[in-house]
Amino acid sequence: MKLPKEDFYKLLVRPTVVISTISRRGISNAAPFSWNSPVAMKPVPLFGFSSNTRHDTWRNIRENGEFVVNLVGEDFGPLMSILERDFPYEVSEIKEAGLTEVEARKVRPPRIGEAFGWLECRMTDYLKLSERNVWIVGEVLEVEVKEGVMKEVVDVEKVKPLNHIWGESFVTQMKITKFPRA
Amino acid sequence: MKLPKEDFYKLLVRPTVVISTISRRGISNAAPFSWNSPVAMKPVPLFGFSSNTRHDTWRNIRENGEFVVNLVGEDFGPLMSILERDFPYEVSEIKEAGLTEVEARKVRPPRIGEAFGWLECRMTDYLKLSERNVWIVGEVLEVEVKEGVMKEVVDVEKVKPLNHIWGESFVTQMKITKFPRA
Repeated sequence: MKLPKEDFYKLLVRPTVVISTISRRGISNAAPFSWNSPVAMKPVPLFGFSSNTRHDTWRNIRENGEFVVNLVGEDFGPLMSILERDFPYEVSEIKEAGLTEVEARKVRPPRIGEAFGWLECRMTDYLKLSERNVWIVGEVLEVEVKEGVMKEVVDVEKVKPLNHIWGESFVTQMKITKFPRA
Repeated sequence: MKLPKEDFYKLLVRPTVVISTISRRGISNAAPFSWNSPVAMKPVPLFGFSSNTRHDTWRNIRENGEFVVNLVGEDFGPLMSILERDFPYEVSEIKEAGLTEVEARKVRPPRIGEAFGWLECRMTDYLKLSERNVWIVGEVLEVEVKEGVMKEVVDVEKVKPLNHIWGESFVTQMKITKFPRA
């Protein structure tokens, strides 16, 4: 069955992350993104994501290069509609959503305390894809997770990662299946 | 708990796709990738993924720009160790894995018949990230899925998408959860 080309991302179950940034005056911003991926590991670990060029996220990162990737579980599901809202610049979605700002170790934007893990990043590169979209690449400077959520990999049954498909459709209940590797 | 920076991708549950390409002499290649993401939608839909610059995938795409993103379910789990193996150039992993090549509509690399969906792409851009890694961006030219696997979004309980975390740890059993959007 042929689909409209624009529907291609309804076929991919992608991790939802909440990215926090900070304005020149020190006011935080946060927004959810599900177009993201690791992009390289050596010589340094790099993480990439796609942002609308009109969003406060890009405005802040263009100014100071720093962002925190907050890794979130299903408890963030009900907060999506607040975190993604188009508040005026320098209204913090973190506060609007009733979440807690926690100081990061290597960058100025805050971590969100309720996340299960945090990647502190500094932009190293970007690829302008259109008038409206930019693929932002950042070096991962620091990685931390809450106590008790890490086994060999993240304990998905414990943190219930919030993956997204499209619209209101998310995936949260996951189980690990093992397959042999080469 | 602080983690080694290189472990950051053990925290993300990412879609596994199998990307097929073709050599100048018309011989197919296929390899699994889980560092990938939609990157833009307008003016044209764009899909990106990270490839090792030494891999046949990059060699072929650099030559002719074309690739097919084969969307796969848990039935591909046992095939990962074959598809990812470093066969000599112009040995087709599709044949080695006992899979079926099916003609694509808009590009020369074949679709893998056993996948549940296919994105036919042509490279529009790339970002060289290191000596070893390149982020490849392709325009999605054609999207098709098998009959009966599409509801509002892909029917995850039917196709059991093969998501990857790290090493032998995959996720295949998923259920949709709905959360309101802004």
